[in-house]
Order: sequence, then C-alpha cells, then structure tokens
Amino acid sequence: MTAWWHKDPLHPLIKTLGKDKVFTTAENLALYGIDATTFSGDPLAVVLAESTEDIQAAIDFARENELSITPRGAGSGLSGGSVPISGGIVLSCERMKIIESVDSKTKTAIVQPGVVTEKFQREVARYKLFYPPDPSSYKISTIGGNVAENAGGLRCFKYGVTSHYVLGIEYVNSEGEVEQTGILSSKLSNPDITSLLIGSEGTLGVFSRIALRLIQIPEKTVTLTALFLKSEVGLESIDEIINLGLTPSVMEYIDRKSLTAAANHIGVSFPDQAGVMLLIEVDGKKDEVIDTLHQIEAKLKKNALVVEVAEDSEDRDRLWNLRRAISPSLVRLATGKIQEDIAVPRGKLAEMSVHLSEISLKRGVEIAVYGHAGDGNLHVVILYSVYNQGEIKTAKLAAQDVYEAAISLGGTITGEHGVGCAKRDYLHLQLSDLNIQLAYQIKKNIDPHELFNPGKIFPSKGSWKSSSSHTSHSNL
Amino acid sequence: MTAWWHKDPLHPLIKTLGKDKVFTTAENLALYGIDATTFSGDPLAVVLAESTEDIQAAIDFARENELSITPRGAGSGLSGGSVPISGGIVLSCERMKIIESVDSKTKTAIVQPGVVTEKFQREVARYKLFYPPDPSSYKISTIGGNVAENAGGLRCFKYGVTSHYVLGIEYVNSEGEVEQTGILSSKLSNPDITSLLIGSEGTLGVFSRIALRLIQIPEKTVTLTALFLKSEVGLESIDEIINLGLTPSVMEYIDRKSLTAAANHIGVSFPDQAGVMLLIEVDGKKDEVIDTLHQIEAKLKKNALVVEVAEDSEDRDRLWNLRRAISPSLVRLATGKIQEDIAVPRGKLAEMSVHLSEISLKRGVEIAVYGHAGDGNLHVVILYSVYNQGEIKTAKLAAQDVYEAAISLGGTITGEHGVGCAKRDYLHLQLSDLNIQLAYQIKKNIDPHELFNPGKIFPSKGSWKSSSSHTSHSNL
Repeated sequence: MTAWWHKDPLHPLIKTLGKDKVFTTAENLALYGIDATTFSGDPLAVVLAESTEDIQAAIDFARENELSITPRGAGSGLSGGSVPISGGIVLSCERMKIIESVDSKTKTAIVQPGVVTEKFQREVARYKLFYPPDPSSYKISTIGGNVAENAGGLRCFKYGVTSHYVLGIEYVNSEGEVEQTGILSSKLSNPDITSLLIGSEGTLGVFSRIALRLIQIPEKTVTLTALFLKSEVGLESIDEIINLGLTPSVMEYIDRKSLTAAANHIGVSFPDQAGVMLLIEVDGKKDEVIDTLHQIEAKLKKNALVVEVAEDSEDRDRLWNLRRAISPSLVRLATGKIQEDIAVPRGKLAEMSVHLSEISLKRGVEIAVYGHAGDGNLHVVILYSVYNQGEIKTAKLAAQDVYEAAISLGGTITGEHGVGCAKRDYLHLQLSDLNIQLAYQIKKNIDPHELFNPGKIFPSKGSWKSSSSHTSHSNL
Repeated sequence: MTAWWHKDPLHPLIKTLGKDKVFTTAENLALYGIDATTFSGDPLAVVLAESTEDIQAAIDFARENELSITPRGAGSGLSGGSVPISGGIVLSCERMKIIESVDSKTKTAIVQPGVVTEKFQREVARYKLFYPPDPSSYKISTIGGNVAENAGGLRCFKYGVTSHYVLGIEYVNSEGEVEQTGILSSKLSNPDITSLLIGSEGTLGVFSRIALRLIQIPEKTVTLTALFLKSEVGLESIDEIINLGLTPSVMEYIDRKSLTAAANHIGVSFPDQAGVMLLIEVDGKKDEVIDTLHQIEAKLKKNALVVEVAEDSEDRDRLWNLRRAISPSLVRLATGKIQEDIAVPRGKLAEMSVHLSEISLKRGVEIAVYGHAGDGNLHVVILYSVYNQGEIKTAKLAAQDVYEAAISLGGTITGEHGVGCAKRDYLHLQLSDLNIQLAYQIKKNIDPHELFNPGKIFPSKGSWKSSSSHTSHSNL
C-alpha cells in the first residue's frame, strides 16, 4: 500500500516554514517521539516554530491534512503530555524563547512559551523580582510547558503553583486563529478562559505568549536539613512546624531509599541510622527568616538525629544537588519505574506513609518515596524489571493500590505532573463519568477537530483517525 | 389569555417541598426580585431549600416546566447575579447554613452554601484557623454566593480571592443530579471543573456543599491610617510600601468624596485639608508585624498629613465602621449611582486616577472612588439623578469611559463583583467574540436547557423562552 505521504505530503509545510524549521529525519523523529517518561510515539514531522505565525502555519497544515498536533516545550514532562502517541506533527516551541518584557512597576512579564524557567527566574531577579514556580526540572523545562501542565515544584507550600502566576495567555486555536485571554491585573474577571488553558496539557491549543505575575524577591533564604530514624517522626515534625503557624518556602520529604540512591549518585554519605531526611527552606525578610529558622530548629531538634543549617551558598547548592539527584538516581536502581505523583490532604501524610509500607509489603515491590511534604504531594516510585512479566504486572497492581489509597484519603492521582497518557486510564478512580464527559465536551468545543494532543487526559475511546497514527507504548 | 400557571402549576412543587419552603406572595416575590443593585425581576416562586434534595426537587420541577432557576445566597451581590430577570424560580440557599466539619489537622472545612461568611470566620477562629476572604458584605453574604461570584474583599493583596480557598464543590446539575468536583488536597488535578464553577455566577448549577482550605490564624493584627493632601501622593505611597517588599493584609484607598460621605454618615470629622485616606492593616507573627508597622509608618510619614495607629480594638472597629459606611453613605448622595468595580495592574493606579478626574471633568459627573488599592481594584461610583434623563445618559457614557480607561491600562471591567446583568453588555470591551462564544458554549454543555440564571454574564441574545419571562430593569 502506498500511503499518501509517500507523495511528499510535507512539501507545502516545508515550503511555508523553510527547511530548517521542519525535522523529518528518523533520528530527529525518534528524539521528539519521547519525553521524560517511557512512553513513545512516531511523529511524521517536527515543526520548530519561531513565531506565532509559524504556529499558525503548522496548525493550518495539520488541520487541512487531518494530522494531529502534539505541542512540546522541553519534553521534560512526567505524564507523557508531549509524547506524540497519535503520530502527526510535534509542534515544538523551544525556539520561541524571547522574554518580551519585564515591568518592575506592575510586577508583570510577558514571555514566549519556550523560555526556560530558570533563565526567566534569573532574568527577573535582575529587577529584584521573583517568579516562584520551580518544578524540579526548572533548569530545562519551559514556561509554556509549566503552564500547560500547571507545574508545581518545591516552593508550592508557601507560593502556590504555576496557575497562581499566570495572568493571561495568547494561544493559537484549531482554526489557526490567535486568541488572547486574561488580563494584566491581579484580579481576574469572569468568564475566565485562562484557567481552562492552564493545565490543559496541550489539548486545547498552542500557547504563543504568556503574561506572568511576579513578586518581590525575598531578602534572605536559609536552608536546613534534619535526619530522623523513622518516617512517621519526620512527617509529624512537618505537621508541628505548620501548626506553629510557620510558612517555610520548601518542606521536602526524602525516604531512605531515595536518599541512598541520591547520595550514592553524587558521592556523599549520611549517618547509617537515618531513615528519612527533611529539606527545609525559609525565605523572606532577614529578621523574620532568622526568627523562623530558630523556631524550626528548636522543634526539629526534639526528635531528629541531626539538624544542620547550610552555612553558605556552596553548602546550599550541595543539598539541592542531592535533592535533584533523586529522580535520575532512582532510574539506575531498576530497568523499569512507575513514577507516581499523588497528593493527599496535609495532615494525612503519616497515614499515606503507612499505606505505602503496606502496599510494598503486600505486593512485594520496592517503593521509593520523596516529594513536597508541605503540600501533601508525594512522588512514589515503584521499581521493577522490564524483563520480568510478573514484576511488570505486580508493579501495575501496586500503582493502582497507591492511587486508590490516595483517593481514599481525599487526595488526587496527580498533584503536579498532569494526566497525559500515563494516568488517563485511572482518571475514573477520581472523577465521575459525568465530570470526565463534561471536560471532554469542553475540549471538543474548543478543539472540534480533535487536532490537539489526542489520547491525552481522557480515557482512550477508539483510535485517532489519521493514517499516520501509531499505538502508544505503555510505560510498563 | 389564560397562562398555564393559573391552573395552580406550583402545586406539585409545594406538595413535594412543603408550604413553608415555597414563597409565592407578592411581598416575598418582590423581596426576592432584587439584590444590592437597582435591577429587579419578577419570579413566579421562591424556593428556600433546606437540603441537597430540596435543591434537586426545585431543579427537576423547573426543568420539567421550562422555568428558569436563579440561585441566591444573601442577595448582597453588586452585579445583579441573583436578580431573577428571567422570572422563573428563585432558589435560595440561605437556610442551608450548616458548617458540616472543621478539621484542624488537614486545615479544611466543609460547609453548606448558605453559611454566612462572618459566621464561618468566627467558627474557624475557635480552632485558631483563618478563612481570609472578606468581601465588604461579609456580615451578610454567604459562602455559596462568595464562591459563585469569586468574591474578593479587603485582604486580597496578601491572601488572594475566594478561588484560592476552594478545594471542591458539590453541586446539582440541570438534570437534578448531584455531582462533586475537586479534592481535599492543596494541589488540584486536571481536568479541573472546580475552577469553572468558581465565579460561574449561578449559570452552571446550584452548589450544595463546599470544601474550603483554611490557614493558621495570624498572631497579631494592627491597623493604621494616613491622610494625604493629594490622591497621587497617597497612591505613590502604596507603590513605595509594596516596593519595600512589605505585604500588608489590607491597603484601602478612600477618596475625599467617599471619606466625607462615610464620615458624615457615622458622625466623625477629619482634617479639612485631607484629600485622600489610606487604611492599612498588617497581620502575622507579632515581631514581624511590629517591624513591618514601623517601616510603613516611617514611609507614610514622609508625605502624609497625619499617620495614626489604632491603639485598641475599639479604635480599630471605629476605622472599619468608617470604611464599611462608604457604600451605604454614597447611596444617600444621589438618587442614582453606577457602582463600578474596575481593576488595573498595580503601579497603574495613579494613571487610572488621572483618567477618572478627566472623565469627571469631561462628562460633568460626580465620581467617588474607593477600593482595594493593593490589588489595583477600585470601586468607582458615578452619581446621578434618576429624575434627569440628561444625567442618566451622561452617567452611562462616563461608565463606558471608565471601562475603556481600565482596559486601556491592561485592566478589567470587573475585579470582584462579577458580570451578572450589570456588565453583560460591556463584556465585549474586554473579551473577543470568540472567547465569549466559547464561554457560552461551555455554559451550554453544562446546562443544555439554559435552566440556570439565563441573561447573566453573556450579552443578551433573544429572550428566554419561558412564558414567565420578564424584561430586566436596567440599573440606569
């Protein structure tokens, strides 16, 4: 059978955009077929848009040729959001990295979607301004991707998630038209389409410009760590700090398995008895920070093995390198991992921890746990061998146990990574059929051709119509 | 013509709910035909629901009889949201005022929609918890109404608006089915229907239970005021305080006209030269509050006529009574007023103030201005005589000037009061036709019968089909 694309169907797209903006070689297609999960897809082409007009051209071409569009930032997502499981065209915004404006008077900025989060943070710091959202991947992830996934990060306990900093979005819809939502004010008006676009995971359109709210940069930041014998004691200490009325910017929980992996990875050692580590950061006005630090130290010292304050920025960087080494180091422990992202109400962390121990025991699987304890958001990593069918099956069952435990405590199956294709088939555990149906209808209103990221968020129903469609590779 | 309701069509509704839950007398219908605006409508009946089942029964009855439902809390709204301009049934939740739970461990609460905001704040304070949203009407407004309008209030600069405290909503949809959205966690998952319901102004369904996030109660609160000769200087002082990196909980701006009206109303006097008053509140840990207070005092004293700190709670109450007297006292200055609720980006307040002076001069209208300066949210009150057609026309033109000025500065026509029927016909100034159309399609998805609050938010297009329909009375 001669498929239609054998007649060089990409020709009009390449002609419009120019050859250097359209990738079609096998190596490039493979590279843009994956993200930070183990899902993969086979796109027909990758468009590297450099302007809103380029995005429009790609969307027009896709719509006219009944191809899907998978929007992509840095491809660092953890739920498969930017994996082109429907084939079609990957529309990367990585080259759209202009910071159009930073206004210190109104404390706002306008950026293109491909601006890297860390780069943006550095730029606004020059104006003594602060953009708090900091997903662990912030050194590579983009603002557009962060908004699409409503990324969280380490500082959410004090500063909230990405949505709290988005004022408005310019996007290209499925007709190729440029639309704007939101305003540059700190209060948003009804009806608020902006909130629909935030966290839409590339299913509603492609962002071309984003207006962000900034805040004053904190005067001082201090970092401290505490090691505990037991998980429960560490988790209780977090509750105690919150109950003192203190608001650290960071309160991270790291279990022994994660700590061991990360410490080995970067070549440091820690006291043998340590069962869990807390990483806490306090920022704000200088005097307040010192006062808060002393209160936290006093509270932690009651039950901790060791409490230590990072004395200088070098110490601080070392601790953060340890924290950031967790995810990559866990990958080395097994050939397969399921990375979960559950969140439970604050105060239910100790209960969740007990559930996780029970699940590990019952299913006989290795589970590593770390995450944003202040938010009740835990990354639960289930390790298995991809070469062992039994382990694959068991890991899958354990993952479902974890979802169910989180939901039974009033939590969610996805705190900050999004649904994508990784959690699509578990969404029914959390949302009623009616709610899922409703969200799907809204998607269909905004994207009637189902052009954008088909197969994401919503439980699969039938396959994508395009002949370039490929089945997804499960992450198991 | 004999309309169908002459055959006692309400009989089935009264039979299901009982006579004491259905009001049909002319006095009651008139009472529930209005809110805090000058709009009014003529409902066929008022249902005072006492349970989720009562809400379901009213919705089923309305749907089967092709009547509209206008959901209502306390009727204290300022955009006509609870005015039954489509006739039909007013569905009041004022009797559903049970606080179902307050959990100090997870810092969450579950309430029925009719709980009065102040009452809820007092109740959670018993657990040393804090629910920050405080619209000026908080002594009578309800949580359900606050969520439906995404109410703001005085403390938004530090604490944000109602949406920042809503974790989940139980609501009854147009089929009479009970649905739940959201979770009891601090991070929300995609797809997030909760954010659609918040600020939906009664157009998507009727809330039956609301889950709220609470925070630790501040240890100490201090209140201070400053009087300035000129508006610009007062507004610049606000910018200066923000630029110091300080975050007062309250930063209110009150112009001379508003101050005069309120002071006369409660019988206090103020220095003759005062052109503008700032009301500032700082809360938090005791030492931090004192430190912040001193910094603010020092900054204000540079340019203010007088700076005074409220010494005790009696002093504080007196200042707050003055602030709360503004809206009712302005009503007495003229027979008609247009109450606007624009918001501009922080840092653009001084510019907006100049625009307002120019509009007042150009149109020859009296304008009073007060509001939440920290948020850039100003209540602009245009005064006129309802007996003078020329003044009515001029006031309307001035209102449009104000909307356009706010939008030209990157602001919004509604900061916290909602669109309702008051700003429905100005929405196109702010949102593209496509965006409005999209929001309307979403409304139709969720409420295909257009049962809920027809004629609100969306620019009017054709009249409501029910035979009980009445035209709206404009607020001019």
